[in-house]
Amino acid sequence: MSLLEEKSQNTTPISQLGEFGLIDHLTKNNKLKNENTIKGVGDDAAVIDIGDKYQLVSTDLLVEGVHFDLGYMPLKHLGYKSVAVNVSDICAMNGDAKQITVGLAMSNRFTVEALDELYAGIYLACEHYGVDLVGGDTTSSTVGLMISVTVLGEVEKENVVYRSGAKINDLVICTGDLGAAYLGLQLLNREKEMFKENPTMQPDLTGNDYVLQRQLKPEAGVKYIKILKDLDIIPTSMIDISDGLSSEVLHLSKSSKVGITIHEDKIPVDYTTMNLANEFNMNPITCALSGGEDYELLFTISQVHYDKFKKDADFTIVGYVTDASEGNNFIAKDGTSHPLTAQGWDALKK
Amino acid sequence: MSLLEEKSQNTTPISQLGEFGLIDHLTKNNKLKNENTIKGVGDDAAVIDIGDKYQLVSTDLLVEGVHFDLGYMPLKHLGYKSVAVNVSDICAMNGDAKQITVGLAMSNRFTVEALDELYAGIYLACEHYGVDLVGGDTTSSTVGLMISVTVLGEVEKENVVYRSGAKINDLVICTGDLGAAYLGLQLLNREKEMFKENPTMQPDLTGNDYVLQRQLKPEAGVKYIKILKDLDIIPTSMIDISDGLSSEVLHLSKSSKVGITIHEDKIPVDYTTMNLANEFNMNPITCALSGGEDYELLFTISQVHYDKFKKDADFTIVGYVTDASEGNNFIAKDGTSHPLTAQGWDALKK
Repeated sequence: MSLLEEKSQNTTPISQLGEFGLIDHLTKNNKLKNENTIKGVGDDAAVIDIGDKYQLVSTDLLVEGVHFDLGYMPLKHLGYKSVAVNVSDICAMNGDAKQITVGLAMSNRFTVEALDELYAGIYLACEHYGVDLVGGDTTSSTVGLMISVTVLGEVEKENVVYRSGAKINDLVICTGDLGAAYLGLQLLNREKEMFKENPTMQPDLTGNDYVLQRQLKPEAGVKYIKILKDLDIIPTSMIDISDGLSSEVLHLSKSSKVGITIHEDKIPVDYTTMNLANEFNMNPITCALSGGEDYELLFTISQVHYDKFKKDADFTIVGYVTDASEGNNFIAKDGTSHPLTAQGWDALKK
Repeated sequence: MSLLEEKSQNTTPISQLGEFGLIDHLTKNNKLKNENTIKGVGDDAAVIDIGDKYQLVSTDLLVEGVHFDLGYMPLKHLGYKSVAVNVSDICAMNGDAKQITVGLAMSNRFTVEALDELYAGIYLACEHYGVDLVGGDTTSSTVGLMISVTVLGEVEKENVVYRSGAKINDLVICTGDLGAAYLGLQLLNREKEMFKENPTMQPDLTGNDYVLQRQLKPEAGVKYIKILKDLDIIPTSMIDISDGLSSEVLHLSKSSKVGITIHEDKIPVDYTTMNLANEFNMNPITCALSGGEDYELLFTISQVHYDKFKKDADFTIVGYVTDASEGNNFIAKDGTSHPLTAQGWDALKK
């Protein structure tokens, strides 16, 4: 037994693979042994057969300095967000979230009162989403705060939606609007920098409540899942938009072995987002494509349902599914077509 | 909305409460809403009704610099241990582990090859315990490595064992032996310090394989669960020994509203552990009571089963259950009785 860790001669930086490349690499030889494991790594949640229903399981980490900055993220909001982003993964499988466990590692700069704030947000989200906090682990860290949430959900077996079921000619639909969370983050970063330069300054965030809320207190798309249920529509594929529209389109098309074409002029962007993007000299469509953290849902449905979605403000038809040979394309407002590439947020490529 | 986090006037250090005090504090107003949530926070795993069976869910974090030191913990062992300690929680509920999710946060000093080593250990443990890796999250951290594992298990409803069922006059039984993992850690720390002083020195770990293995590659007590099943015995209460015998005795007695008396001369300690304790001028019984990380099982059974355990090397009767009014007591070899207090390992009190 070697006492000291042997240093490997081979040193491939993780940034070379990025998050999804790394996950593919680490799980390429993963074998599933239990017959009740229906779906392992590779979707928004794992799927386990529990008899009458499928259970959905997903884990998300939030790391200080990577996913949040306590300089402007109130702890109560952080607690809420850590639950909401996990519930979002259950929505993406067309399921209902039921339970969470919370793992917490924090340095000794955090007080009991600070954790009370964090948990106030966690409990608020549990109440809002009808989820039970059933367990977890609480420990110290050498530096910073790290929150690991695992969510358990349920779905009727016949209603589960994977990333892999999109069919040629399906409509591609996006809920809500995109890009706001990313611009909220830009705004908070700008105010933080200004505050550093002049600590007596009061931040002026007037008129930007919407983008700030989208960044600080995102909601999972449970209301959209309910609407789909009421309409008796089961999407052919679905994913939540956590890393930007481009990245999620590529996940759906890769898993479904199809191509997807989306239209710039269809991408839903709120007017506040639009105005703020202009103020930052950013293209709002770029924010929607690559910004991340919107936690909207992206799904595909058969064209027979077109009438039900053509005028609904909650749902926007942003494109359609093609044969895989056509690839993934972005049709700009001027009619030109461009291959769609992922430039979404990737914690491992920063 | 306040842009910058408001500093609270009240600052109670977390160390004042410790891990279990903090968990009690943070969950005292936790309300369970879903009828399929049978047991939330407060046992080795949460219990969820999935129809025919109960599902068991537990989350454990391992944080670099708190739970492990990569100076002597090979990454493959760390991967194995991170799964084993979670499977141990499922054993403590008398269940079978089935699936895990792994959340990983690591700084950019980790290479793809390092993660391959870590995952080799994770997969080895999955193979050994018949567990499927079904999901997780992989992200960067500003410093260090953090592993969050959530394990899902199953148990027949009539076989689930809580911490809360111990009855007066029950026997208290401990599996395997105690104190070795703690002494393994002392040995590794000593060799590390000597290596720092003289880097050309080769560590001499001869004869200490057992304690090193107990620290670096602990096993969950699945074999004991199988023996109990074969004997058709369901313990009245059970817990895994992760923080030292004292701490776990106090958990069982508190949850079961009883007292527990244990006898010094019954506590199982391996002869290697004994020898090494002498070398370190430590009391081996103190290592067993307060050392932690042994991942043995501590359980209570009715006295009618006495004959089945009185001569089994795998199981040691260490004490018995009394009325709560008698408290928790430690009977020393000289016959004197001492109140049992928890001085086990607590990451939040270090």
